[in-house]
Amino acid sequence: MSTPIKPRTPPGVMELLPRDQIAFQRMLDTIRGTFEQFGFLPVETPVMELSEVLLTKSGGETERQVYFVQSTGALEKAEAGRPELALRFDLTVPLARYVAEHEHDLAFPFRRYQMQRVYRGERAQRGRFREFYQCDIDVIGKDTLSPRFDAEIPAVIAAVFERLAIGDFTIQFNHRKLLRGYFEGLGIDGDHQLAVLRELDKLDKRGEAAVRATLAGEGFGLGDSAIDALMAFSQVRSRGHADALAKLDALGAGTPLFEEGRAELRAVLAQLQALGVPESRYALNLSIARGLDYYTGIVYETTLDAHPQIGSICSGGRYDNLASHYTKSKLPGVGISIGLTRLFFQLQDAGLVSTADSSVDVLVALMDDALLPDALAVSQRLRAAGLNVETQLEPRKLAKQLQYADRAGIRFVAIRGEDEVARGVVAVKDLRRGEQFEVAEADLASALQVEREQLRALPAHVVQETTR
Amino acid sequence: MSTPIKPRTPPGVMELLPRDQIAFQRMLDTIRGTFEQFGFLPVETPVMELSEVLLTKSGGETERQVYFVQSTGALEKAEAGRPELALRFDLTVPLARYVAEHEHDLAFPFRRYQMQRVYRGERAQRGRFREFYQCDIDVIGKDTLSPRFDAEIPAVIAAVFERLAIGDFTIQFNHRKLLRGYFEGLGIDGDHQLAVLRELDKLDKRGEAAVRATLAGEGFGLGDSAIDALMAFSQVRSRGHADALAKLDALGAGTPLFEEGRAELRAVLAQLQALGVPESRYALNLSIARGLDYYTGIVYETTLDAHPQIGSICSGGRYDNLASHYTKSKLPGVGISIGLTRLFFQLQDAGLVSTADSSVDVLVALMDDALLPDALAVSQRLRAAGLNVETQLEPRKLAKQLQYADRAGIRFVAIRGEDEVARGVVAVKDLRRGEQFEVAEADLASALQVEREQLRALPAHVVQETTR
Repeated sequence: MSTPIKPRTPPGVMELLPRDQIAFQRMLDTIRGTFEQFGFLPVETPVMELSEVLLTKSGGETERQVYFVQSTGALEKAEAGRPELALRFDLTVPLARYVAEHEHDLAFPFRRYQMQRVYRGERAQRGRFREFYQCDIDVIGKDTLSPRFDAEIPAVIAAVFERLAIGDFTIQFNHRKLLRGYFEGLGIDGDHQLAVLRELDKLDKRGEAAVRATLAGEGFGLGDSAIDALMAFSQVRSRGHADALAKLDALGAGTPLFEEGRAELRAVLAQLQALGVPESRYALNLSIARGLDYYTGIVYETTLDAHPQIGSICSGGRYDNLASHYTKSKLPGVGISIGLTRLFFQLQDAGLVSTADSSVDVLVALMDDALLPDALAVSQRLRAAGLNVETQLEPRKLAKQLQYADRAGIRFVAIRGEDEVARGVVAVKDLRRGEQFEVAEADLASALQVEREQLRALPAHVVQETTR
Repeated sequence: MSTPIKPRTPPGVMELLPRDQIAFQRMLDTIRGTFEQFGFLPVETPVMELSEVLLTKSGGETERQVYFVQSTGALEKAEAGRPELALRFDLTVPLARYVAEHEHDLAFPFRRYQMQRVYRGERAQRGRFREFYQCDIDVIGKDTLSPRFDAEIPAVIAAVFERLAIGDFTIQFNHRKLLRGYFEGLGIDGDHQLAVLRELDKLDKRGEAAVRATLAGEGFGLGDSAIDALMAFSQVRSRGHADALAKLDALGAGTPLFEEGRAELRAVLAQLQALGVPESRYALNLSIARGLDYYTGIVYETTLDAHPQIGSICSGGRYDNLASHYTKSKLPGVGISIGLTRLFFQLQDAGLVSTADSSVDVLVALMDDALLPDALAVSQRLRAAGLNVETQLEPRKLAKQLQYADRAGIRFVAIRGEDEVARGVVAVKDLRRGEQFEVAEADLASALQVEREQLRALPAHVVQETTR
């Protein structure tokens, strides 16, 4: 036997032990279930796309640190130039390709969700991932898409984060039309709008005085009153529904573009109220600059109230045309993305997500070889009732089996010796409650189901473990 | 605007329209749920592995048509030699790496399932995929693993295919020890056993006479009685539990290795009976040669009774040492794999899987702009009750909305005009049954849930559509 090769993953990927994988999988299931409750349909695309199709813009390649793919055969031929295949770096370009390719088979507005891994050749760094899950929803219209869809997106996101139960959160909005309209009103034309915005985005880092100086200086040359107005605008944050409306009103009259943006935001607020989204979950934040060269209407960011340092955990917005590289059809859309791998990493880091209990509900113990057929039959009856069951296939001391179940996060151990079999009962050890009870074999499945349901109402018994 | 690039996927991948994706996702969910019912724990590994770790055997590379991965940066450097990263070509090598890497954090026997895509640079050909899902279960022991686990695997597989409801199936076994022991008994030594087996494997293709001639000829030189025995052995197929035991008995006495294999098979049969697996679902098939250079004990293949031409839809077996390349620990295991992408393709091809109904249960219609808040509130109440709901956000003619729901495979349309709102009711169109009924708004969610449950007992209304 040769010297073993050190088993290890490449840097920049997240690999989890089973109980953390169960916790991660439950988050994925919650997100998927919520997306489906809002009528979004599943799409999966291949991890590999044709480079020609994926990389429609020259120059973006290096920026996005694309991974190229070559089979053994292609490598041997050592063809010059860009390899034919590349790994997707997000789910938006594949969506554009998918919608353009299948345009005639899809019904519009097309609500789709996609939850897959994407790949970026990021520099190796703690908390930066080269492979990570994105969980995206988008609604794509044909020719037009009502601004009403802008309100559905934050309603989905609010439902997702309520159910993930990772603490209070706020979905914050800004609006490109409001912003551009406001800039117009101050005499800042289209070419300068992005530059001004970039300066405003540095407020936190550089401080107000420095930003003011830049805006007043060469290249911008803005007057004091315009700068005051910009500062005031970008500091607008609302608290609660009425305050959001009041803050919008307080901005005063503006250009037609500004008024269009304001009307859309008011409509979004009204819809969120009709949808019953708690008003603490959404707010205006007119400083949000995210992707303003790409988005054309509302933009969203979501933050955890108690953990602002994590930054936005779910972002997106409205865009005018999804797939101009692939089709002449105009396909406006609105969407949002959760970077789940990064979020999971940060939640673990902040102690907000715990190692899950096992997906196994019951360990059916075995102390006596002769009772194996009985243990197998009991296990199958529990499975038929919908429980997840592991059977101890080789006899061991009961103490060892209980210890194993406890460490593995399995709550129940079903114990049946000669005596229990003779009496038609099962002894059940409940490791969560530290209790033991006896139940007729025929009632075992329903008893465990009742216990399981009851427990869901209780606060979780948190088992802390190291992940890697 | 430049000329659009033709949106298309690379050859050899499967991409589905939403309703086929729903059907596929339901299969994934059924498989996962069943794996979990038998106590298997989830593992996901990165799609990229270090080439050095993935490709431990030289020469296997070309055979397996590995895809290598390079970031833009690595390509520019144009380093000589094999790229650092490669895509996994199965889930077994990543499992070996995972178990070896996390050995001290795992409890053995370790039952794991993994359902992810794998990559092979196959020649482009109908029904051959370069990216495909594998759904694997394995049980890995430390130092030893009881043969009892050999019986649990087919019990899981039987449960999976019962629930997938794609027709009658048979899980067929052979056993490497039985086979090698039988060969030994005929005086065929270890070196020749594989060669003889390869000839026997050609029986279907070449016919009995040709194979007999080869075995009697140069290089083999077997006598008539040995050849007769081989032919008889490889034609053993059982029907039913008692017949399987009888066929094993009828093989007569053999070498110690043979008897070991026979005892293990008898134990597997006894356990399957104790587990309540229907006897029509399993059979001996002593011709199975699959992977006999890798497997060391029981081997499994699964076929659809009505579609033998599809070949094995789920195969696996017992192996002595999973991870000898990565650790000095001995890690014996037993496992099986479902190639789900290929299976789904073949089921579609054979008309055994249909386009699913939508994942959306209800479309909440909208005819009048003023009723939007009501439609949103109704939608949210239905969601709170666990239903998947799409809201019509812009008013359209009712006929159009019904037509849309019908095409999209959405069963219920909830209709509320001024009149219904005034009376506190909702009109519900059931597109599956072609009926309409009226229900109090407060009872809508429970009424729809009852209808949905009832329908699950009925044969599915099959909607046929073209996939691509």
